[in-house]
Amino acid sequence: MIIALDAMSGDVGVDVTVPAARRALERHPSLELILVGQPSVLEAAMAKHGLQAHPRVRVEPASEIVGMDEEPAKALRGKKDSSMRVAINLVHAGTAQACVSAGNTGALMATARFVLKTLPGVDRPAIVSKLPSRNGHTHMLDLGANAECSPEHLYQFAVMGAVLARAVSNLQDPRVGLLNIGSEDIKGTQSIKSAAAMLSQSDLNYIGYVEGTDIFLGNVDVVVCDGFSGNVALKSMEGVSRLIADFLGEEYRRGLLSKLAALASYGVLQRFRKRVDPRAYNGASLLGLNGIVIKSHGSADAMSLENAIHIAVLECHARVTESIRDQVEAHLLPDVAANLDNPS
Amino acid sequence: MIIALDAMSGDVGVDVTVPAARRALERHPSLELILVGQPSVLEAAMAKHGLQAHPRVRVEPASEIVGMDEEPAKALRGKKDSSMRVAINLVHAGTAQACVSAGNTGALMATARFVLKTLPGVDRPAIVSKLPSRNGHTHMLDLGANAECSPEHLYQFAVMGAVLARAVSNLQDPRVGLLNIGSEDIKGTQSIKSAAAMLSQSDLNYIGYVEGTDIFLGNVDVVVCDGFSGNVALKSMEGVSRLIADFLGEEYRRGLLSKLAALASYGVLQRFRKRVDPRAYNGASLLGLNGIVIKSHGSADAMSLENAIHIAVLECHARVTESIRDQVEAHLLPDVAANLDNPS
Repeated sequence: MIIALDAMSGDVGVDVTVPAARRALERHPSLELILVGQPSVLEAAMAKHGLQAHPRVRVEPASEIVGMDEEPAKALRGKKDSSMRVAINLVHAGTAQACVSAGNTGALMATARFVLKTLPGVDRPAIVSKLPSRNGHTHMLDLGANAECSPEHLYQFAVMGAVLARAVSNLQDPRVGLLNIGSEDIKGTQSIKSAAAMLSQSDLNYIGYVEGTDIFLGNVDVVVCDGFSGNVALKSMEGVSRLIADFLGEEYRRGLLSKLAALASYGVLQRFRKRVDPRAYNGASLLGLNGIVIKSHGSADAMSLENAIHIAVLECHARVTESIRDQVEAHLLPDVAANLDNPS
Repeated sequence: MIIALDAMSGDVGVDVTVPAARRALERHPSLELILVGQPSVLEAAMAKHGLQAHPRVRVEPASEIVGMDEEPAKALRGKKDSSMRVAINLVHAGTAQACVSAGNTGALMATARFVLKTLPGVDRPAIVSKLPSRNGHTHMLDLGANAECSPEHLYQFAVMGAVLARAVSNLQDPRVGLLNIGSEDIKGTQSIKSAAAMLSQSDLNYIGYVEGTDIFLGNVDVVVCDGFSGNVALKSMEGVSRLIADFLGEEYRRGLLSKLAALASYGVLQRFRKRVDPRAYNGASLLGLNGIVIKSHGSADAMSLENAIHIAVLECHARVTESIRDQVEAHLLPDVAANLDNPS
């Protein structure tokens, strides 16, 4: 299996991407990596991090870098030799089975959509990620690619999310829920109500409406929502987790007795940290494209980025693109099917 | 100051509301409470919890109770002598300056809106609550009363939220932010963009777009959003907080050494718990009505419900209704002003 890694993107660049590549190669003995970027910079980093002359790594030259704050449209038009673009091109050409980038989400989505195109029957690609839950994790989509969504979009997200949960989490019949709000008065928007009606008639394991709390309770496997709510949920989760961690840290540093208690709790706190480590959840998939594209957090460290590469490996193994193609076709809405000239 | 307490609502009822009333009377020496509900039930509970013949408490009879899952429209039409309705009536009649209920949110909003009406210039009441942040707390609205919002609604929420932050949090010039998502590609919906344009031209201290993470960072005082996103953010926050607390508890119970560490950490964990105690944040305000209505969590305990009563006290002191009336008028949009027959 060959995966292309955009080795220049992210907040840090090669000093994270190259060590992450080394970790990934150690974890997956049959993995081959193409590091995409400026050859001189990459070769220096590979020498520094003990990755020179590795039999399963090669460098693919790309002269430009997409900035983390660069406008997607500008990056797409103006930087045709960026490490991001070249990595996606390698997937398009079939040279690589997937690509991984820690670059700017908007540019990655725009470029991937332009180069790879969406699968037949998919109107909009979605961003999906795992979130921690009571007994494992939940897949949630869309996390920000589509601020507003039609019922058809939400329905397609449900189909794609179920494929992903089946493929990478080994769930036979993932439970799919539609994110909604609790207040009886105004249960959901029209778009959500219509999506619910469509999902009830599908053969997906649709369990109905879920709320924000349910994401973490372990009673649903795939949470479907528009990109606005999804992004708000994700960022709120990140924000409050950091706040809680900060408060806990502050209390353990407050005075000598607390510091001694922290010492006594070292093992407990290490295990706790490991369970809530956001790095374990790094790696969001851009679903619905003609190829596997994984987005890593821009601020990911090597361990974290290696997790994103691991997700790419899982999706390649599970042939996620082909499964989505088949499933979207199997779940095509009547009117979509009628309008689709070439559904294969 | 006289506050009406819907003493029958909530998951528990009088065994929470009566002890909460006692706590509130102890905390606020000039507070008078009207406990609304079935007299025989209330008098028994008052005897049981040491609140009989208290000089600052009286009972107002109400024969019915609105169920926690009852449809708002049904409650509004069918239960005209419910404890919820009678408590709101007392505010409408001027007998009480505020009311507090742990009853069903939809029914409370529908009844309050029907009885009290919205203030001139306010199209939709909103639900606002404090959320914890790095250096204090953030006010966020709407939390679920209005799933979809026009730019004008969001603008009115901003005006009302700023009044509340000024009144109850003693902020001179609260920083107001509009909740949005980070991805550059698709920064926000049309409604948010238009609301941003309106806020930029207002004399509110509008600081621009904020993301879900910012709610907890302490760099914004009032976060404005539609009720769908607000409810999703709130519930996600609750869900992940509970998950983290559960994980921490589990690790501290894993084996003898961990239990000893928990013992050594007793003081630290107590302080930590106090800082993240959701009970300290109980009490959401229904803003934009002709009167003060506070909604407590249905599962609130006595300490938690007492916090909701405390918020009612603060809002009465600050004359929040009058301030919102004045400020909404001062910030009236040109076309709203033109259409308003009687803006006083």
